[in-house]
Amino acid sequence: MATYLEEQSPVYLDYNATTPVDESVKKAIFSALDLWGNPSSACPLGTQAKTAIDIARTSVGKLLNVAANDVIFTSGGTEANNWVLHLAVKVHKSEGREGKPHIVTTTIEHPAIIEPLKELVKDNICDVTFVPVDQASGKVDPGAIVRSLTKDTCLVTVMLANNETGVIQPIAEICDAVRRYAKEEQLKHRILTHTDAAQAVGKIPVDAQQLKVDYLTIVGHKFYGPRIGALIARGIGTVPMFPFLFGGGQERNLRAGTENVPMIVGLGAAAECISAHGQSHMNHLRTLRDYFEAEIGEKLGDAVVVNFQSSNRLPNTSSVAFRKIDTTACDLLAKCKTFYASTGAACHSNAPKTSAVLLASGVSEDLASKTVRFSIGRETTKEDIDRVVSELKAMTFLSKYGSSLLNSIGIGKSIGGF
Amino acid sequence: MATYLEEQSPVYLDYNATTPVDESVKKAIFSALDLWGNPSSACPLGTQAKTAIDIARTSVGKLLNVAANDVIFTSGGTEANNWVLHLAVKVHKSEGREGKPHIVTTTIEHPAIIEPLKELVKDNICDVTFVPVDQASGKVDPGAIVRSLTKDTCLVTVMLANNETGVIQPIAEICDAVRRYAKEEQLKHRILTHTDAAQAVGKIPVDAQQLKVDYLTIVGHKFYGPRIGALIARGIGTVPMFPFLFGGGQERNLRAGTENVPMIVGLGAAAECISAHGQSHMNHLRTLRDYFEAEIGEKLGDAVVVNFQSSNRLPNTSSVAFRKIDTTACDLLAKCKTFYASTGAACHSNAPKTSAVLLASGVSEDLASKTVRFSIGRETTKEDIDRVVSELKAMTFLSKYGSSLLNSIGIGKSIGGF
Ligand SMILES: Cc1ncc(COP(=O)(O)O)c(C=O)c1O
Ligand SMILES: Cc1ncc(COP(=O)(O)O)c(C=O)c1O
Repeated sequence: MATYLEEQSPVYLDYNATTPVDESVKKAIFSALDLWGNPSSACPLGTQAKTAIDIARTSVGKLLNVAANDVIFTSGGTEANNWVLHLAVKVHKSEGREGKPHIVTTTIEHPAIIEPLKELVKDNICDVTFVPVDQASGKVDPGAIVRSLTKDTCLVTVMLANNETGVIQPIAEICDAVRRYAKEEQLKHRILTHTDAAQAVGKIPVDAQQLKVDYLTIVGHKFYGPRIGALIARGIGTVPMFPFLFGGGQERNLRAGTENVPMIVGLGAAAECISAHGQSHMNHLRTLRDYFEAEIGEKLGDAVVVNFQSSNRLPNTSSVAFRKIDTTACDLLAKCKTFYASTGAACHSNAPKTSAVLLASGVSEDLASKTVRFSIGRETTKEDIDRVVSELKAMTFLSKYGSSLLNSIGIGKSIGGF
Repeated sequence: MATYLEEQSPVYLDYNATTPVDESVKKAIFSALDLWGNPSSACPLGTQAKTAIDIARTSVGKLLNVAANDVIFTSGGTEANNWVLHLAVKVHKSEGREGKPHIVTTTIEHPAIIEPLKELVKDNICDVTFVPVDQASGKVDPGAIVRSLTKDTCLVTVMLANNETGVIQPIAEICDAVRRYAKEEQLKHRILTHTDAAQAVGKIPVDAQQLKVDYLTIVGHKFYGPRIGALIARGIGTVPMFPFLFGGGQERNLRAGTENVPMIVGLGAAAECISAHGQSHMNHLRTLRDYFEAEIGEKLGDAVVVNFQSSNRLPNTSSVAFRKIDTTACDLLAKCKTFYASTGAACHSNAPKTSAVLLASGVSEDLASKTVRFSIGRETTKEDIDRVVSELKAMTFLSKYGSSLLNSIGIGKSIGGF
């Protein structure tokens, strides 16, 4: 007979991969499906759609403390990140600078930064320095960023919070340091700065002005919004801009393509929700995450290590190495029945790899292979945590008796999608 | 007191700019908002989302007579068009060909082809030949395409149906002619072929196999679907492919970015709707468009010319030059109260220009400036047409007495958004 534990549906603890869509967002999307006019048309159907976009733009701007005009809607974070890289190269070339453009980033960025950069390097379009992060804290050292700058550097891009470790990066300090360098070196050009804030929005306050960046990426489905995003160009008109997608001149000639009005309106609603409730969401996330970590500390003792626990982290993220299991985190996840969570590795592929981000952050190969990322959401309750912790305790206890016993339990269950 | 005409809301005759969202599509989107899992995650929430995407992919493939795997979802037609241009350049380079890549297109393409091409030329990345169309028929001559090919040509891209004139282009003939050339010239490389079918889907049968193209662009909001699109790569695995957006490896490593599940599911529903009802929609469109043209012919006589009336055209599109008005089509539209339609010019800008497409198609400057594009939709009725024609008759009659009289009537109303 099924036990009580099995009857309940598993707890979703993978909110960093994606979130549900907030009810207010759903409503906004649904009603905006009727705003079907082309926003470029001057007929009432078109102007209604245009007005709705402008309202959403204002909501997103308010959330990030930028002008509405600084917000340019994109199809997602991936597009925004790809865009900013191409944009920086274009700025470099448009200024007639001689050297090959050079971009500085870190070793722990999301694939939506790492992969397009690798491609640009492969195509001989720019050089890139991947700056390692401090191995104790998982944090980028602004000094290390500055040391990697050259006369050809056109862009520094560092994520605001890492999706796997949750470690928050010192973006404002980095921007200050970069600008100090430019001044000291008496550069005639700007070194542009960008942060991928995909994981931060909705979990911590994100103020583009305080962060001092030129550009910032946001992603709706990480904060209970729709599957689109935006590139923020702080101080549009003064910060350099080039389009990435060319065509009908939408988004003030910066991002062509007929506007996805329902999704844009949904993004506005998601932003409003956070402007109104972000602080209380944050408190909730932190309370439960801290409770989770206290509980696993108490119940599992030295069988677990929380990676970067003393670093400044996202309030919802817990990167936990199950150091005493004699198998991998993928296997552990596959056996657990009470929750869904992630590892940074591709559990479902034939050759499970160890999370590159954890390794780059200074986690040992052994611990990295045993690490699970738990990420908490608005819906998570204390009872959820209790269920999960009690299963984890049972699992790690079982694991002492070898993976054969562990393997005999339950159905496979693993997760990708960061 | 308001007249009967004024009480009714204006008839929307701008379906080529955008369509409403079909009820079945709305429902599909709304229920897919609950499929919020990350399709890359192996948890049930993720696999449900993945399954929904696969179903939509099958629906779109079926509509266009390609394999489901040939369908790659994008944020819209603009992205798909930009992508295919970059892709062709990349193929050229990856084959180690010496010369600068050369792309052949026409003078009547949508800005989502023309503008990225201009940018590629400006950046010295490729050369482009814009082939003029036949001035009598508005049609591209396959011979003219072939005459513009060089040993460096990597792509020929010609739209399937023009958004302003509705003229359908001989894509299969062009593809045949291009392949014949490649054979005769004993080229060691392929000349890739692409058609922007944005305006054709939902109005005429679009069969990628019959069209013989390598790539094809579709746009959801032109056929009662959502504001996303797809790039079709016919015979994926054999046709060359390179991603345009890089990141998390979604869409089988071809188009990164967390999938916009609700919109993708909506696109699938829109495709299913056309697979089921496309033929009857087409008949309806043609009947009403032909009725419209017969009526204006009868009621307005030689005051109107239907551009390219004897060409093979989309069944819903009527490009009408009001040759006897002593003002512009923009002015005419601004005065008309019973309908919304478009001109190819930017009516709302300070310096109204004449439609570049009409001029390139061989319409005289004078007639082009007096041309209105009427585009009919599923909802259009005979009564709608009667109302519109009777106003047009009154307007062109009034116009004989000069624009001052015309100017004294009604409020401004003009349209952009193609
Ligand atoms: C840090 C970070 N940046 C960018 C992205 C890319 O977002 P999307 O896949 O929605 O384009 C994600 C999420 O996948 C992310 O976690
Ligand atoms: C022929 C053609 N191609 C491409 C597009 C671009 O579609 P979207 O603006 O939705 O990206 C349109 C519509 O605007 C079009 O009419």
